[in-house]
Amino acid sequence: MSPTPLHHPIPDTQSERDERHLAIQQVGVKRVRFPLQLKLGAQMQGTVGEWSLDVALPAEKKGTHMSRFVAWLEAGADLAFDAALLRARHVDMLNLLGAVSGRSEVSFTFFIKKRAPVSGIESRLDHQARWIVETDAQGHTRLWQEVAVPVKSLCPCSKEISDYGAHNQRSLVTIRAELLGDDLPFAQQVRFAEESASSELWPLLKRADEKWVTERAYENPRFVEDLVREVALRLNKEPRIGHYRVEVENFESIHAHSAFAVIER
Amino acid sequence: MSPTPLHHPIPDTQSERDERHLAIQQVGVKRVRFPLQLKLGAQMQGTVGEWSLDVALPAEKKGTHMSRFVAWLEAGADLAFDAALLRARHVDMLNLLGAVSGRSEVSFTFFIKKRAPVSGIESRLDHQARWIVETDAQGHTRLWQEVAVPVKSLCPCSKEISDYGAHNQRSLVTIRAELLGDDLPFAQQVRFAEESASSELWPLLKRADEKWVTERAYENPRFVEDLVREVALRLNKEPRIGHYRVEVENFESIHAHSAFAVIER
Amino acid sequence: MSPTPLHHPIPDTQSERDERHLAIQQVGVKRVRFPLQLKLGAQMQGTVGEWSLDVALPAEKKGTHMSRFVAWLEAGADLAFDAALLRARHVDMLNLLGAVSGRSEVSFTFFIKKRAPVSGIESRLDHQARWIVETDAQGHTRLWQEVAVPVKSLCPCSKEISDYGAHNQRSLVTIRAELLGDDLPFAQQVRFAEESASSELWPLLKRADEKWVTERAYENPRFVEDLVREVALRLNKEPRIGHYRVEVENFESIHAHSAFAVIER
Amino acid sequence: MSPTPLHHPIPDTQSERDERHLAIQQVGVKRVRFPLQLKLGAQMQGTVGEWSLDVALPAEKKGTHMSRFVAWLEAGADLAFDAALLRARHVDMLNLLGAVSGRSEVSFTFFIKKRAPVSGIESRLDHQARWIVETDAQGHTRLWQEVAVPVKSLCPCSKEISDYGAHNQRSLVTIRAELLGDDLPFAQQVRFAEESASSELWPLLKRADEKWVTERAYENPRFVEDLVREVALRLNKEPRIGHYRVEVENFESIHAHSAFAVIER
Repeated sequence: MSPTPLHHPIPDTQSERDERHLAIQQVGVKRVRFPLQLKLGAQMQGTVGEWSLDVALPAEKKGTHMSRFVAWLEAGADLAFDAALLRARHVDMLNLLGAVSGRSEVSFTFFIKKRAPVSGIESRLDHQARWIVETDAQGHTRLWQEVAVPVKSLCPCSKEISDYGAHNQRSLVTIRAELLGDDLPFAQQVRFAEESASSELWPLLKRADEKWVTERAYENPRFVEDLVREVALRLNKEPRIGHYRVEVENFESIHAHSAFAVIER
Repeated sequence: MSPTPLHHPIPDTQSERDERHLAIQQVGVKRVRFPLQLKLGAQMQGTVGEWSLDVALPAEKKGTHMSRFVAWLEAGADLAFDAALLRARHVDMLNLLGAVSGRSEVSFTFFIKKRAPVSGIESRLDHQARWIVETDAQGHTRLWQEVAVPVKSLCPCSKEISDYGAHNQRSLVTIRAELLGDDLPFAQQVRFAEESASSELWPLLKRADEKWVTERAYENPRFVEDLVREVALRLNKEPRIGHYRVEVENFESIHAHSAFAVIER
Repeated sequence: MSPTPLHHPIPDTQSERDERHLAIQQVGVKRVRFPLQLKLGAQMQGTVGEWSLDVALPAEKKGTHMSRFVAWLEAGADLAFDAALLRARHVDMLNLLGAVSGRSEVSFTFFIKKRAPVSGIESRLDHQARWIVETDAQGHTRLWQEVAVPVKSLCPCSKEISDYGAHNQRSLVTIRAELLGDDLPFAQQVRFAEESASSELWPLLKRADEKWVTERAYENPRFVEDLVREVALRLNKEPRIGHYRVEVENFESIHAHSAFAVIER
Repeated sequence: MSPTPLHHPIPDTQSERDERHLAIQQVGVKRVRFPLQLKLGAQMQGTVGEWSLDVALPAEKKGTHMSRFVAWLEAGADLAFDAALLRARHVDMLNLLGAVSGRSEVSFTFFIKKRAPVSGIESRLDHQARWIVETDAQGHTRLWQEVAVPVKSLCPCSKEISDYGAHNQRSLVTIRAELLGDDLPFAQQVRFAEESASSELWPLLKRADEKWVTERAYENPRFVEDLVREVALRLNKEPRIGHYRVEVENFESIHAHSAFAVIER
C-alpha cells in the first residue's frame, strides 16, 4: 500500500536551464486560503485571507519554487497583519524566492462596528478588502489598499420627474488606493465612500433608524456619476494616498443590470 | 510522440461487479455546457445549457457509463427543446444508461421581449431558467420548470413611517413549478412574479417610463412576505401546476444582506 | 440635511394581520456575514460566517421581525461556537422570533494543520464547512454538520488500459452528516474523506512528499463511484451520525466537466 | 393603481452641467445579458453575451445617457457578430453617446466540434471567450480577442521522481490577443493552447481515446512555466497578433490551490 522508499537523491527538474529565451512576468500560486490575523488599529480580528503570490522569472530559469510561497505563508502564521507588516513581509518573500520583482495580494473580509443613526444600536458591517504589494523590475515597490463599501444610492432623475418616491438601490463603492507610506485606517477609507452616498448602511436598524435612512437618502439623491466624483474629491484631499481607482456599481432597482462609473488617478 | 498502439481488447473496469453492497442514488456528470436550441412557443432561441445528468446505480454494479451521458447530449444536438421534448428525451437517457431512475437537469438563460409601460419602446429582459426531470425507483417521473424573475420591491414600513420616499430594491423571484403535463409557457410563469411585485423591470426605459415605474412601485409597496404570498396565490389558481416552491430574495438597499421568504406546496 | 424628527409613535406595519390565509415556511435573512469564533476541540479559530436564518410564519401573521435575526447574531458575538452551542443558540433564536419552527445555517472556512507524509513539514489546509439546525413544526430539531474535503482521485480505468501513467485530478468530497447528539470533531469527519481517496492533499510538499503522493495515488485508483462508497462505508460504522449525504465531484482532467456521485442515508 | 399622468415636459437632470471639475474615465452599464448571434467562419452559433459598455465623460458634463447603451444593443439584435462587426458597431456606440473614448466588452460561451483522437467520435467542447474594443482619448482603437481553453497538464517533476505515475490536472489557458486588423478565427487561437499542453481535452472519449490521452500526457509533461512559454512562442510567430497576455492556471491535483504563470507582450 505504501509508496516505494526513496533510494537516491530526487532530481530537481525545476532548477534546470530553459532554452526558450522567454521571461515570465508572473509565476506563483493563487486561490490559497490561509488564516489571517488582522491588526485594525488597536483591535485584532481573525479572518480568512485568499492569497495570490508571484514573482518574475528570468528567461534562462526553467521554473520557480512553488512550495516556498506556501512556506512563506506558514512562516507568517502567527503575525498580526497591517499594511506596513505586509510590505515588510513582501520583501522577505522576494528574498526567499530569489526574485527582484513580484507581487503579493490578499483578499479578506473585515468588520466595522457601527451605531445606528437614531437608536444608537450597535452592529457589525462586513467589508471586502484587499492589499496588493508590487515590486517592479527596478525594485520600486507600491502598496495598494482596497475596500469595497456597500451603500445606498437614490436616483436624482427619478426623484425629480416623479410625483412621489424615487428609485433607490444598493451600490458598491470600491476604492483602491496607493498608500504613500503612512498607514490609512480602513475605517477612514470606508468613510470616503459612506459620506459620498445617498445613505450609508447598517446591518441592524430599528424603525426610527429606517425612517432616518429613508429620508436621508431622499434628501441626498446621487447619480452613479455623482457618487464616483464625490469619492474622488475626498481622495484628492487625502495626502496619504497617491494613485487610486474608484469604481461605483449601482445594482439598479429599475433594471436587471448595473450602472457603473470609474475615476482613476 | 504518439501513444502506443492498441494491441488487444481494452478492459472495461467499470462493468465489473462491486462487493461493497452499497447502492448509489446518483452518479453521472455535471457542469457540462452544451448548445441549447429553445422552443418558446412559435419562437426559437439559441442559448447555452449547463447540464447535470445522473442515474441510480444498484449495489452490485461497479460503475456507470459516464460517456453515454455526453453521447446522449450529442444525439440531441439538433433538436429544439421544450419541456415536453426534454421529458421524452429523459426516457431515452434512462434507457441508454440501462437505469430505472435518474435525473436530467439543465440551466439556461432566455429572453423575453417587452414594451416599456409608457413609451412602448422594446427591449429584451434575460431570465435564468431550469428544467429538472426526475424518475424515482418506482418509475414515476416529475418535471419541474423553474424561472428566476428580477423585479422591484418597495418597503411598506419605510413608506408608512417616512415623511417622504421609501426604500426599494431589486428582488429575485424564483418559481419552481411541477408541470402536471400540459405545457406552461415561460412567459406566463414570469407574469406570476411580475404581477406580484411593486413593479416589474425593463432593460430600456425612457424618462416617462422611469416616472411610471417609480410611482407604480410607490403605490404598490410589498414586504418580502407579501410578495411570496402574492405569487403563491396566483400559482394556486393555475391547474397546470402541481407542487411548487417560490423563493423571493430582496437585495435590501438599507442593508448589505438579503431578506428572503419561501412558500412550498 | 438631516431627516425630519420623529414626532409620534412609528406604526409597526409588519405586526398587522394578514388576510391571504397562506402560511410561509421560511422567512428571514440570508447572505449575512458575521465574525465567527470557532471552537475546534481545545483550539480557537477566528473566521467569517455567512448566515442564513429563517422561521416559519403562520397564515394570519403579516410579517416577521427581520431585525431580530441580526440582533441575535450580535448577542452571540463574543461566544466560541461549536455544534452544541449553535444548537442551544438556535432555540434562543426561535424564542426571540416567537416561532415554533425555523432554521439556522452558517457556512465558514476552517483550517487543519497537517504534516506532509515524508518530510513531516507542517501546513494548514482550508476546508469549507457548514452547520444547519432545523426545527420542524412538531418542534423536532436536527443538526447537520457539513464539510467539503479536497482530495486526489486517480482513474482505475485509465491506469488499467494505459501502458504508463493514469489520469488523476482534484476531487471534492462533501459530507453532510446529522449529528445524533454527541459532538463529531471536524478533523474526524475530514478523515472519512481522506482515507477513502486515492490520496489526501497538503498545501506544502517537499519533493520526497510529492513522490509519495504520486505513487500513493497510483497504487490506490478510485472511480467516483468507489470514492463515494468508501466514504459511505466509513460513515455507516460511525454511531454519532444519523442521516447523511455524501457527494463526490471529480474535476476530471481529461474533460472540461465533472463526474459526480451521491449516496444518501 | 396606475401612476399619475404626465402633464408637463420631464426634466433631464443628467444633461445639466457639473461643477466639480472631475472627468470620469468610464461610465456606463455592466452585467447586461443580451442574445448574441456569433459568426464563426461560415457557421452561426446562438449564445448569450454579457456586456459591459462605457464611455469617458468630460469634467463639465453631469451625466451620460445610460439608456442609449441598451438601445445600441437592441439596434444590433439581428446582426451576426464577429470581431470586425463589433469594431464597427463600437464606433456607432461612441457616436450615439457623443463620446470620443469608450469601451465595449462582451463575454460569451462558444463551442468547437472536435473528433476524439482514436475513435474519431465527435463532441462539442465549450470555451469562454471575450471581445474588448477600447478607444482612447486620442481616438486610437484596439480590439482584444480572448479565449479560455481547458487542457491537461502533467507535472515533469512528479514523473521524474516517481517510480510510476505522475500527478496531472485540468488547466485553463487564457489568451487575450490584440488583433492587428485581420480576423483570427477562435479555432486557431484555441490551438495555440491545445498544442502547448500535455494533452488537449474532449467531452466524449471512448476507452481507446482515454488510453491515448493518458499516454500522450505522460509523454508530454509540462510545468505551468513550460505551458505559458509554449503558448507565447506560438503567439510570437503569429503576425495577426500585436500585444497579448497569456495566463495558465493549473488546478493542482496534489494541492487545494492553483499554480499560475503569466506572459505579457
